[in-house]
Amino acid sequence: MNIEPTSRSLELQERLSAFMDERVHPAEAVHAEQLRDSGDPHRHAPIMEELKAEARERGLWNLFHPHADAHPSVLGLSNVEYAPLAEILGRSRLAPEATNCNAPDSGNMETLSMFATDEQKERFLEPLLTGETRSAFAMTEPAVASSDATNVEMRIERDGDEYLINGRKWWTTGALHPNLDVFIVMGKTDPHADRHRQQSMVLVPADTPGVRVLRNLPVFGYEHTEGHGEVLFENVRVPVSNILGEQGGGFAIAQARLGPGRIHHAMRTIGLAERALELLCRRATERVAFGKPLAARANVQDWIANARIEIEMIRLLTMKAAWLMDTVGNKQAKTEIAAIKVAAPAVAQRIVDNAIQVHGAAGFSDDFPLAEMYAHVRTMRMVDGPDEVHRMQLARQELAPYRAARP
Amino acid sequence: MNIEPTSRSLELQERLSAFMDERVHPAEAVHAEQLRDSGDPHRHAPIMEELKAEARERGLWNLFHPHADAHPSVLGLSNVEYAPLAEILGRSRLAPEATNCNAPDSGNMETLSMFATDEQKERFLEPLLTGETRSAFAMTEPAVASSDATNVEMRIERDGDEYLINGRKWWTTGALHPNLDVFIVMGKTDPHADRHRQQSMVLVPADTPGVRVLRNLPVFGYEHTEGHGEVLFENVRVPVSNILGEQGGGFAIAQARLGPGRIHHAMRTIGLAERALELLCRRATERVAFGKPLAARANVQDWIANARIEIEMIRLLTMKAAWLMDTVGNKQAKTEIAAIKVAAPAVAQRIVDNAIQVHGAAGFSDDFPLAEMYAHVRTMRMVDGPDEVHRMQLARQELAPYRAARP
Amino acid sequence: MNIEPTSRSLELQERLSAFMDERVHPAEAVHAEQLRDSGDPHRHAPIMEELKAEARERGLWNLFHPHADAHPSVLGLSNVEYAPLAEILGRSRLAPEATNCNAPDSGNMETLSMFATDEQKERFLEPLLTGETRSAFAMTEPAVASSDATNVEMRIERDGDEYLINGRKWWTTGALHPNLDVFIVMGKTDPHADRHRQQSMVLVPADTPGVRVLRNLPVFGYEHTEGHGEVLFENVRVPVSNILGEQGGGFAIAQARLGPGRIHHAMRTIGLAERALELLCRRATERVAFGKPLAARANVQDWIANARIEIEMIRLLTMKAAWLMDTVGNKQAKTEIAAIKVAAPAVAQRIVDNAIQVHGAAGFSDDFPLAEMYAHVRTMRMVDGPDEVHRMQLARQELAPYRAARP
Amino acid sequence: MNIEPTSRSLELQERLSAFMDERVHPAEAVHAEQLRDSGDPHRHAPIMEELKAEARERGLWNLFHPHADAHPSVLGLSNVEYAPLAEILGRSRLAPEATNCNAPDSGNMETLSMFATDEQKERFLEPLLTGETRSAFAMTEPAVASSDATNVEMRIERDGDEYLINGRKWWTTGALHPNLDVFIVMGKTDPHADRHRQQSMVLVPADTPGVRVLRNLPVFGYEHTEGHGEVLFENVRVPVSNILGEQGGGFAIAQARLGPGRIHHAMRTIGLAERALELLCRRATERVAFGKPLAARANVQDWIANARIEIEMIRLLTMKAAWLMDTVGNKQAKTEIAAIKVAAPAVAQRIVDNAIQVHGAAGFSDDFPLAEMYAHVRTMRMVDGPDEVHRMQLARQELAPYRAARP
Repeated sequence: MNIEPTSRSLELQERLSAFMDERVHPAEAVHAEQLRDSGDPHRHAPIMEELKAEARERGLWNLFHPHADAHPSVLGLSNVEYAPLAEILGRSRLAPEATNCNAPDSGNMETLSMFATDEQKERFLEPLLTGETRSAFAMTEPAVASSDATNVEMRIERDGDEYLINGRKWWTTGALHPNLDVFIVMGKTDPHADRHRQQSMVLVPADTPGVRVLRNLPVFGYEHTEGHGEVLFENVRVPVSNILGEQGGGFAIAQARLGPGRIHHAMRTIGLAERALELLCRRATERVAFGKPLAARANVQDWIANARIEIEMIRLLTMKAAWLMDTVGNKQAKTEIAAIKVAAPAVAQRIVDNAIQVHGAAGFSDDFPLAEMYAHVRTMRMVDGPDEVHRMQLARQELAPYRAARP
Repeated sequence: MNIEPTSRSLELQERLSAFMDERVHPAEAVHAEQLRDSGDPHRHAPIMEELKAEARERGLWNLFHPHADAHPSVLGLSNVEYAPLAEILGRSRLAPEATNCNAPDSGNMETLSMFATDEQKERFLEPLLTGETRSAFAMTEPAVASSDATNVEMRIERDGDEYLINGRKWWTTGALHPNLDVFIVMGKTDPHADRHRQQSMVLVPADTPGVRVLRNLPVFGYEHTEGHGEVLFENVRVPVSNILGEQGGGFAIAQARLGPGRIHHAMRTIGLAERALELLCRRATERVAFGKPLAARANVQDWIANARIEIEMIRLLTMKAAWLMDTVGNKQAKTEIAAIKVAAPAVAQRIVDNAIQVHGAAGFSDDFPLAEMYAHVRTMRMVDGPDEVHRMQLARQELAPYRAARP
Repeated sequence: MNIEPTSRSLELQERLSAFMDERVHPAEAVHAEQLRDSGDPHRHAPIMEELKAEARERGLWNLFHPHADAHPSVLGLSNVEYAPLAEILGRSRLAPEATNCNAPDSGNMETLSMFATDEQKERFLEPLLTGETRSAFAMTEPAVASSDATNVEMRIERDGDEYLINGRKWWTTGALHPNLDVFIVMGKTDPHADRHRQQSMVLVPADTPGVRVLRNLPVFGYEHTEGHGEVLFENVRVPVSNILGEQGGGFAIAQARLGPGRIHHAMRTIGLAERALELLCRRATERVAFGKPLAARANVQDWIANARIEIEMIRLLTMKAAWLMDTVGNKQAKTEIAAIKVAAPAVAQRIVDNAIQVHGAAGFSDDFPLAEMYAHVRTMRMVDGPDEVHRMQLARQELAPYRAARP
Repeated sequence: MNIEPTSRSLELQERLSAFMDERVHPAEAVHAEQLRDSGDPHRHAPIMEELKAEARERGLWNLFHPHADAHPSVLGLSNVEYAPLAEILGRSRLAPEATNCNAPDSGNMETLSMFATDEQKERFLEPLLTGETRSAFAMTEPAVASSDATNVEMRIERDGDEYLINGRKWWTTGALHPNLDVFIVMGKTDPHADRHRQQSMVLVPADTPGVRVLRNLPVFGYEHTEGHGEVLFENVRVPVSNILGEQGGGFAIAQARLGPGRIHHAMRTIGLAERALELLCRRATERVAFGKPLAARANVQDWIANARIEIEMIRLLTMKAAWLMDTVGNKQAKTEIAAIKVAAPAVAQRIVDNAIQVHGAAGFSDDFPLAEMYAHVRTMRMVDGPDEVHRMQLARQELAPYRAARP
């Protein structure tokens, strides 16, 4: 395993850190205020467009995208090169969108780059890559356990030259973004085919008749700008040319997009954990109780030491997964991807929890980013599949040779 | 230890459960809708007044109050009698206020019953006991670690017949309640006295000039009706007759109120934990993934078993603390009160966390009470003093005999 | 729930504590030395017989036994009365045998009192009650998972007036005791009967031809005097009159003995935990590192506080189980018995582990009882069934109403 | 970070694995039997000398030693090259001694290579490198907390051409080895010098008059062949030429030896953890309870998945520390060394604990290596300094920039 940073990755880290210090972190309070003033959590704060313009200009744009031929703005960084950049992005809620590296758009862009036709790319991918539009990925359904992807119930029926779509999705991230342009929708086209050949993905423009965003789902009291929508698709019709890849290929596309998605989450989670640890250390150094700073107490020192140990470990595991994805492919890296999917949020959650504790009640409020981090890392134990499903699959792989040895 | 329920406690449990089933639980969705429709989280939802009227009528009012002579509506239940009732109240966010048993009013009412003059009682306590007004308790300050109560910096200076109050408080629960009538404010009257004789408490009517509620503090994104205010006191003047108890007695009053406050929190936390476990069991029974209900998986079964074991233990420890408070007094029960203050939220947090996990992403939204419970139990590890301070004091007591034995 | 101590329990606690201080604790080093000197871990150290004589004389004998009519020496204490006594016994490895309250003899005596014929009682029970002989309980088998009692494979075949016994047992505690007199053996008499009617128990005198104690099984390197034997039964014959209860009744007897056995273990485990906490506190007070005693460090204080909290909780849960066994019967107490079976060793293990850590390497040696406690509490998570089986059953009970409500 | 294996490391891994499979693992039962038969745990089992001869012949000898010029048998592997080999060695208790890579001899040999004079090397180091003799490292003392190395109390006084040594050591590993040749002893030569210049190390031949091994200290009931001795030094005299390095340089030598010692422990611990996980998986696959193999239960699957995740993480962290030691030096790697010192045993302990649980009571006995592993990994949380001290130092480093920023 060789994860020595390339010179372009080092140079980008430096530039990105400068951008964070000069523009992104100072923008956090402004962004919060613009949203508060607008009275609508789903309004697009003007400062975000300023950040995006600046990031584009600085060449800090689409960093996530692994394919240099996808667009002139794309450098085509390897996962090992991108990982430390994604970690830096994870330090601020604003940074991923400001650099066009935010989920689910990043995953959608990568998916479209791989599976879309030239016409689809021109219509849907190009404006995503420039940051003009936003996209949503509609997979999870309220009625079934989506941890088992074969449970998907949405119907997509071929009807002449069109697909007729009926069903209900939720946790469709991005559904309430004011710039939303398109949904990638997963549903069943072939209910009688093999279990993994029943699903397809189709592209549904956001303004297609029959598409209704019923409501936003709050996350522990937070309403995010981009939103997590419950979306009803009622007799929605799109031309058959809107299919992504081939009919029956939905499950395979879903698998292809999940690997990168999970590791991007893990990378950003490391940055979040580092920032929480910084806040913990700063507060523990400043705050005095019972005659000495909190940082002088051995239990707080244990928290700090464990945080450092565990961050080191999840970073190395993330880098190993990235290196495997770069060298032997996403499929061969599945053990490490599942491992870091489970490990990273657990570590970050402990650190954020401890950081809150040294902040006293202030840690619950929006005066510090910790409360929202606490909500966010909790969701990471479910997003892209609950930890329990990943553990089940890890155990299955681990047990395989022993099972094979049984008569 | 004898914690056999009295017949009146049993009878009240039955009546209270009926009230919960018939009125409170059905009101939860209505309450949420009324708040949402009003567009103002600090509006008092009309359904709350309906619930209060009904509770008063059913004799389920002021159940928390231990002194029967405080008011005709007060039964004067012992802690052992009240504990199972408080547990039932803890099952719904609405129930404590609906029965006039909510913090901080309950603690304020008990404090006023013990320390207020007759004039103070008539003016401030009576309308609290009937539920017409609300009160706030202003102790925590943003600039210092309030876990160490001697850190309080607010100045309360005697100036002729008045006290002149200057300082800033926050996490003043109730400060944004539309019915707010009075603040109990803790500050320093005698900065040169003994460490525990420097503080006093004064009663400050909410409309006194110079009192400004600067903002509400959200809790993990949630804005509560009663609010957690940041409150500025600038040259606020109240007559000297507004002092509570004697000058320099603030620390002693604070100590007196904290014991009951902590155990009431613990009692309600048990109810919250039981409700979360019910939700967990129901969902795990209904939800099918990979061919069987989640309840058939051994890891989910472990969660359920551990939940039952731990709820049993925190309930018994709460009952022991209650029994000691009833029989030998709050001071003698301090070990058990500190113990349950630490133990109950930790147990509830684990259960709520597991319950969320079996609910999938739905657990993060407001479709179930779990997300708000998750935020709430997290605050319980800080409210009334961070767990670390209570552990420090428990350890000090435990170590005392060994230290004494050292030369 | 009323667990107020009776006056005789209080008086016995006092007398037993005096016996512990005056005789048992001082005998610990002597006992270790006598064993070391003998060069044979299964030799019966003479000091043990001295302790037994003294305990008998002081009326501290057979305290565990709930049936006063079983023997003149038996007081017939309730479980609530015995619990604090068992806790005291748990403070020293020597105390249970010194007072004739040690497993498996206690369980065997209770079983014989309930199920043996008068002849069997005279021959086997009487000398056990006086402490002349010892007994072993042969249930667990090396070849199958004994957590599922229906897995038992030993064959007990009726052959005329005799039972013919063939099979292999292990973890037969007491098998190497020099005073061993009898095995209670569980095996299959009726392989074609209902699953819970296939097993029977028979009494097998230790000197019966065909019985061979193959070896002792060490426990984490410790060789216990009484031993945990691997025992081969090869064409062993006993008269049919040696059956305990009725043929096919083995499973029911096993169930009957397990409830008390588990709670006795839990009671003693609390005493062990208290002693470990005392050692922890003493050492932490005395030991200085980096300029202050370990007890002044906040992480050690957290350990101590958590120990006190958790001991309180397992003691209360044990008392509740005891009270239920006394008032509504062992069967009705099964939830609480399973709960405390799981909870008590987990708590004790954490405390012993922490106590070792403040003792430095000394904690691993035999200079303190902690190392052996560490081994012992680890076994408690398996003895009388692995925790996982108890959790499975607790979950099943908890889930029953939800399952019933499903169509 | 580049940890790509070199071709010689890969080739050695292959050869070492073959040696383990062909000779070491089959020898484990023989070794246990030879010790049991001898009746003396400190007898040197003949099979060990056979293994040593074979390892020497196969070129699997002194692999740990980083300096190729120290001896013809030394390859001078880097830490990155040695790590996977040490992991393989960690899979069997016999392997480290069989390959002359066992503590404390490995650390002693490295120390002598660096600090000994030519005469000292010829007399003491040469026979250690060939495996003829064994050595002990006498640092820890019973009377003081040795976690703080400045606490050392042993007196080493210059008296003409000799040093006069008085004091008591314990946990002197190797003190009871039949081949013991020399002690490296740490004590105070200059009690009035600077805190870190008071100590020196001297070489004390095992047969020097006044050296008495008082007893062996068992570890959780285990008596190891090499022994952990309590050793009394009473008026022991050695020539001044027996000093190691310079007078007053003891603390610096101790620091120099600890880095490699800790990482070697971590490397071997990973091998131990992998073997425990194999045993867990095998048993879980074979053992059936309640109608299905344990491996089919989701809680056991969670254990397995977590084990795989955590082993991956500690291996990567160990490799990072090794790489830093190779590239920037032991001192620059101190954060990572402290981190892995804490992390590796904690992970291994959880896995061994779970492995025991699926083995039932068999896991406590010597039929599987798990019980001894359980004892061993517990000691690893203390050996080379308790985890708490390492956490304290990690926290100090982490906090340094924040403290510096304070006025």
